[in-house]
This record gives sequence, structure tokens and C-alpha cells, in this order.
Amino acid sequence: MSETKVQPDSPGGFRDYLPRQMQVRQKMLAKIREVFERFGFDPLETPATEYFDVLTGGDPDFDMVLYKTRRSNGRVTSGQRETALRFDLTVPLARVIAAHQELPRPFKRYQCGSVWRGEKPQVGRYREFMQFDADTVGTFSMVADAEIVWLMCETMRSLGVDRFRVRFNNRKLSNGLPAYAGFPEESIGDVLRVLDKLDKIGIDEVVKQLTAPLRTESTGEEMKTQPAEDESDDGEDAAPAEAVEYGFGLSPQVTARIKEFLEITGTTDEILAQADVMANGIPIMEEGLTELREIVAYLRAVGVPDGFWGVDLTVTRGLAYYTGPVFEMVLTDLPNIGSVFSGGRYDNLVSRFMPDSIPATGASIGVDRLFAALEQLGTVVSTPTLVQALVTVMDPTLMNAYLSMVRDLREAGVRTAIYFGQEMAFKAQMAFATSQEIPVVVICGTREMVDGTVQVRDMRARTQTAVPRASLVERVRSLLS
Amino acid sequence: MSETKVQPDSPGGFRDYLPRQMQVRQKMLAKIREVFERFGFDPLETPATEYFDVLTGGDPDFDMVLYKTRRSNGRVTSGQRETALRFDLTVPLARVIAAHQELPRPFKRYQCGSVWRGEKPQVGRYREFMQFDADTVGTFSMVADAEIVWLMCETMRSLGVDRFRVRFNNRKLSNGLPAYAGFPEESIGDVLRVLDKLDKIGIDEVVKQLTAPLRTESTGEEMKTQPAEDESDDGEDAAPAEAVEYGFGLSPQVTARIKEFLEITGTTDEILAQADVMANGIPIMEEGLTELREIVAYLRAVGVPDGFWGVDLTVTRGLAYYTGPVFEMVLTDLPNIGSVFSGGRYDNLVSRFMPDSIPATGASIGVDRLFAALEQLGTVVSTPTLVQALVTVMDPTLMNAYLSMVRDLREAGVRTAIYFGQEMAFKAQMAFATSQEIPVVVICGTREMVDGTVQVRDMRARTQTAVPRASLVERVRSLLS
Repeated sequence: MSETKVQPDSPGGFRDYLPRQMQVRQKMLAKIREVFERFGFDPLETPATEYFDVLTGGDPDFDMVLYKTRRSNGRVTSGQRETALRFDLTVPLARVIAAHQELPRPFKRYQCGSVWRGEKPQVGRYREFMQFDADTVGTFSMVADAEIVWLMCETMRSLGVDRFRVRFNNRKLSNGLPAYAGFPEESIGDVLRVLDKLDKIGIDEVVKQLTAPLRTESTGEEMKTQPAEDESDDGEDAAPAEAVEYGFGLSPQVTARIKEFLEITGTTDEILAQADVMANGIPIMEEGLTELREIVAYLRAVGVPDGFWGVDLTVTRGLAYYTGPVFEMVLTDLPNIGSVFSGGRYDNLVSRFMPDSIPATGASIGVDRLFAALEQLGTVVSTPTLVQALVTVMDPTLMNAYLSMVRDLREAGVRTAIYFGQEMAFKAQMAFATSQEIPVVVICGTREMVDGTVQVRDMRARTQTAVPRASLVERVRSLLS
Repeated sequence: MSETKVQPDSPGGFRDYLPRQMQVRQKMLAKIREVFERFGFDPLETPATEYFDVLTGGDPDFDMVLYKTRRSNGRVTSGQRETALRFDLTVPLARVIAAHQELPRPFKRYQCGSVWRGEKPQVGRYREFMQFDADTVGTFSMVADAEIVWLMCETMRSLGVDRFRVRFNNRKLSNGLPAYAGFPEESIGDVLRVLDKLDKIGIDEVVKQLTAPLRTESTGEEMKTQPAEDESDDGEDAAPAEAVEYGFGLSPQVTARIKEFLEITGTTDEILAQADVMANGIPIMEEGLTELREIVAYLRAVGVPDGFWGVDLTVTRGLAYYTGPVFEMVLTDLPNIGSVFSGGRYDNLVSRFMPDSIPATGASIGVDRLFAALEQLGTVVSTPTLVQALVTVMDPTLMNAYLSMVRDLREAGVRTAIYFGQEMAFKAQMAFATSQEIPVVVICGTREMVDGTVQVRDMRARTQTAVPRASLVERVRSLLS
């Protein structure tokens, strides 16, 4: 081993989860998993690494920054299929559907796993983050979409959150905007990208961006990540590209129509009624409204309280592959944290890989963002360790007796550790238990050994009782219960 | 989306886990986790990506094939710190210990996660595979090592396996071999690499390799992976490097001494007694034997049955970083599958990152290999889905009624799906339930709706009963219990 020390840090945008965070994270994931399974979704896992063209769909304009992977002994051969880390769990699902024709249709799966994106890290935005997805593949039925909204609501309730709202819309309404407002079909992608920022920048800025004169050099550029000026991984770079403004040169009349549509408010029923009037004669919009009405009816049939969901015509969702209903959840008490759980219907994604068009709908939890939200809401309580009982070592020659106590406690299901720090002073052992917030400490010196007793200390109540050795397990369990 | 279809396959050595495998894998992982937590290990997670020098320790001779990662928009800058996917969970743990000085000492953690190695894939050997590790950092106490052996035994028992054996040895005995057998200290690494293959190639071949004339061009080359001749990812390449022989030019006398030591057999107590005679006067070997005796005493104190473990002087473990006791588990009924759970003490690894030498010991489960073993042993039973009840759709106009049944079942904790295949014929719905092995099917047509009843079909017993709608949940739960 070399004498020069290696810096023990992680690349920028990557981080460790220490036990204090991990234990609450695991509890959260277990609850989500329980709900997803109860809703009939089955587990799936896919590799971290995919072929690059699988991820991008071979789209030369694909503009997300990915992590390419290459073997350290590998030579680059021309025409070789490159590989990269996955950036979401939806594209791998589409590949799985095409690759494993033996899977049932419809196929309901959940997947929890890390994804990787190379964008510059910012506060709360990492390059490795976890997603937890549920998707139904192989049905056009709006029951599947309603079930996703229902699932989103039920998941939040199981996590102890009841101040949230799932807002949903339909891409078919957005896709009708060119016909409705009178602008060219080919601008819809750019317009949606601006509308997607409505929450952040407000309606006035949206109108401004839509009507500003067309920039000749490019359009839609604002969604691209800035070309990396440097490869530094320090995570300290500032200046995201979003502040840069680009115009689309839409006329004031067109923009006014769009604005009018976006400003439809009221209850879900009122919104649907008003939108219906406006959409009159535009088939794609009428279809979108019919689907929304169907989802609303199903949600009412299963009794998901009205307060948890609602139609919102401003919801767009950034991803290009959505084709129908789109969903996003916001937390009432943390409006600025953005959406923690979102998704939509994507009926064309699988056709990237096979001739058949296979419909699909689903939603994805941003696990790290949701976890940060739960922490802010104060619904998670964590301790440094999961250990429930510590057996101290008063006299190293009695080690075998201590180990038999550890064994008895573990066999009774108590998460138990024996002290093996280097500092053997009693004070040091108690300090260890205190700092680790271990609720029960077992103490046995030579005198207790002779008596056939053990001292059991309740660290929370700061009380200590001597019990017969044979009652150790019973006593510890009663303190923990 | 382009008209040319993308091939929906995965890079060679990577694979999907479909629901049938995932559900049993998850059960296995949950059991392991329960045992590890009961033994006082806390959860930790580290990033998939680490700095390359963190993984290699800056060792220019590091010869494992790793996956380097690079952002797709990144330029290569000279002197830039490269990144790669982790190849195990132990090196990241050592980094965590150095990076997070606030962690307690000793620190007991478990970690479950994927690791990546670029070697050519073979049958049963993948480039992405999962490890499940438990390690104790910060104590020289042999109690920690004994606890690892105990943990290995308890884990297997919780998985329903009782025909296994944890064999253990001490690197300190191996490190005494130069003094004991009379060969240069600097050859020990090469000699250990040959001894590590003993199980595979047999003692005669080991002797042959040790005594064959020294190859002048290099030594120890046989452990290196062949330079990749091509970058093909088809996973079909054959010819691993292991068949190539290299000599070390040890004299027959030296080799005979090594052989004599390796051939010590008998019960653990007999082996320790014989080795004690041979190690007489070689301090490092005497120290190693003292440690082994201590571990044996602790295992007996906690009552781990003798049949589950034993000292075996042929156990070497390939990894260079071990410094003390080394452990490996073999399955009695599957001797050829190799070790599924192994580890050892590594007191110098953390010093790669910091001036202090921090002792550590632990073991790692090869999850995929263990899972394959459990499948071969017939201890895992899997079904295509976790869904317990399917609500069929007899009449789409009754959808709201069906959804309310789904809701009631889910609220009662039954994993429930509603049928939304495209083929609505009753036969198709039943065929779906049959192929998915869903145990209970709920059927309700117009007549039942009028009657206020539901048909509940037990798919395993092939019986069907009409029950009042209000008794649906009770009936389904009784069939499932």
C-alpha cells in the first residue's frame, strides 16, 4: 500500500447514507413497497448499465447528460455500441417489455433503484438519486390511470402525510393548443417546455417568453444543459441555464388564448365544464376531457377524498414521451419543494424497440426529494443505530458469559451488540451507549456473576434493576415494548 | 421517434430480474437483513461511483477490470481524477470510515448493493452482481471475528439451510510460511494466489505450479485477466486465463514443507494442536493460532454447533488486503458452487486514506450465487406474481362496483388487481388468472349485482362460492389464510 494517502471523498453529486438516514429511508421504502404490492404491482429489477441507444432511442437531439461506462481494459472500436448508466426506470421498463415477450399483458410492475444524470449538482439535486416507480403496461383503460392517482394518494397516507394534492391534466389538451390558440403544430414542444415552468416563473413570465421575438440561432435551447465548461466535480458550480430567456415569437392573440385556457380555475367539475366549451370542435381536446372525466368518476367510485386530487390544466410534465393523462403531487406545506411523485401515460415508448405500439401509464417517486420533504415535515424520527440492547464488558475473563447473554437476547429477536471498543472503562462503555442512544444496557460484573444476577439499565428512564440471569430476556423485552 | 427500431437487449454480463425471481430474491434479502440487524449491524449505503484511485488505492499494479464512468458531455482534462463503478463494498466502507469521523468506533454496518467488474462473463458469472456485507470496524478483538462466523451460520439457518460449513484460517499462518518453509518473503503473494486455487486444482497441481521453473518475464501473471482482445459484449467469449501455468521455482524441499502444512487434517482441536507444534518459534504463526483458538472458544461459548464450522489450514481467500482470520462458507450439497459467503480481517485497508491504522473484519454474501444455490437446493418456491386476488370485469358498465371491491380488499391488506386486459371474454380473464397463478378470483355479473352477491373462486381447489357482497373480504381472506 502506497505511503501517499488517497483522498477519501466522493465525486461531486454523490453521497453516502449513514445509518441514521438509512434506517428511516428503509422504513419509508418498506411502506411504499407494501402499498405498491397491495395495489397488485410486482417487483422488477434491471441493470444499472444499458446500451446508450436504448436510453436515447437513437435520438441525435437527446440532450440529457448521461454517464457513459467503459471497461478499464477496453479499447474503443468504431461502430461499437456504447453503454451508459440509466437515467430513469421507465426506459428500461420499455426495453424489458420488448425483450421479454413472455411477460403477461397487462403487466404491472414496480421498481426501486438508483438512476444517474450528469447535470451539475445543486442544493438538493444529486447526480445519483433513487426512484420508486409503479407502471401498468398493456392497457388503454383509464382505470389504470385512475389507479395510479389512487396509488399516489394511498402511498402518501401510508407515509403519514395527508396534506397533499395530486393534480392531473391530459397531454391531449396540451396537444390541442395549436389548433385551439392558432400556432404551428411544430412549436408545441417548445411551448410545453415553457408552460412546464409556470409554477416556477409565473404566468406573466410565461407570456413574456412565448411572445418575445424568435431567436434566430435556435429554439428550445433553454432546456438543454449548458455544455460543461470544465470537468470539475466539486459540485460548487453555479449558474444553471434556466435564467437565459428565449422567445418564440407567438402573437399576442395566440398567447392570450393560451393564457385564457391556463387560467381556467374552480373545482374539478367546473374546470372540466369550462374546458369542454373551449375544446368544442377540437377532437384531440375532447378526447382528453373524456379521459379526465373517466378518471374522476373512478376516483369517486373508490372513495379517494376529493381534497387529495383535482384536475389542473396548468400541469404539463417536462418529459417528451407522455401522450395522455399526466399526474403530479404537491405537498401543501412545502409548495417550493416541487413535485415528489409524478408520472403519466406514454403509449409510444415501447415502440422504440418493437413494431407494436404498447400503451403504458405510471408514476415515479423521487425518493430523495420525498425523504427530504418528510424530514422537513417532521414525520421521520431517527436514531444513530438500530441496536436495542448493549451488553457491556465489565471483566474480559467473563467474555463467554457475556456472549451467552448476547445469544439469548438475539434469539429472542432483540437487536443486540456486545461492547468491543478499545476503551474498556465502564464510563467509556456507558458513553458509547448514550451517544448511540441505545435504549437498554446490560451490566454484569464479578459480583453479579457470583449472585447469578444481571443489571439491566433503562437508558431512557435512567433506572437500573438487578434481575436473575434467567429473567434477562424477559426484562429487556418488557423495557423495549 | 425514429422508424429504425433499437435492439432491446442488455450489454453482455447484465440481466433483468423478472417478478418471479425478484419476489424470492426479496424474501431472501429480507431474511438476511433481519439477521444482520439482530446481530447489531446498522445499514449503510454508498454511491455506485467512486474515484478510481479510491478503488485501486493508487496501486499501478491493480489488475481487476473496472467500469470507468464519464459524463457524456465531459471533456477529458489532464490530471483529472477519474471515476469508476465500485467493484466491492469493502473499499467504499474504508473510505466512509476515513471520510465520516463522526461515526462511532467500533462501527458495525451492513450494506447490500450491486458491484461491477469488467471480466468476461461466463455461466453464472455476471458483470453486475449483488453483495450483502457485514463488517465491524475499529476493534482488534477476536470477539468481532467470532461474531462474523456466528453471523454466517445464523444467516444460513434463517434461510433454511443447515448443510453448510464455515471454514476458517488465519492469514498470519500463511504469512509465516516463508519462515516456516524457507522461501523469500516477497514470494508470499504469488504463493498465496496458487494456494487459493487448491480447491479447484488439487494439491498435486499446486505443488507442480510452485516448483515449476521460474518464468523470467513475470510472476503472478496468471491472476490477471487477459487483455481484452475485443470489446464485444456478447458474453460468448471463452478461454479464461486460468489454464495458463506459471512456475515459481520453489525447491522440492520448500514445497514439501508447504504441502505438509496444508495436509494437516483432523478435528479443529487436532488441527490446532498439530499446527502449534509446527509453528513453534515462528511468532507470526503462533499469534495466528492464538487468535484461532480464541475464535473457537467464543463460538463454543455461544453454542454454535461444531458441525457448522471448523479450522481449515487450506483456506486462503484471494484478496490481498486480509491480515488475520479469513472465513469462507461451503454448502455441503453443492461443493462445486464454491464459497457463497466469505470474508476476513483487514487491519490496513483504512490506512489507504488516513494516517491511523483502523482494524476491521467482516464477510460478504455473493447474493446471486447464494440465490442460485438456494434454487438448486429447492428451498425457494416462486410464482409469477404476488397478486392474491383478481377482480374480473364481467360488465364494463359495472366498473365502479368492481373498483369498490378492489378497494375493500386492498384496505384489508389483500394484494389485489382488477383485470384490464384488452381481451374481455370471461375465458381470457380466467386464463390470465391461471397463467399468473393468482389464488383467488372474484366474479360479479349483472345477476349477482341484482342479488347483492359475489362469486369467489378458489383457483387452487377449483371451487366457487357465492357470498353476500358484504362478506367478500372475509371470504377472500379465509381462502388465503
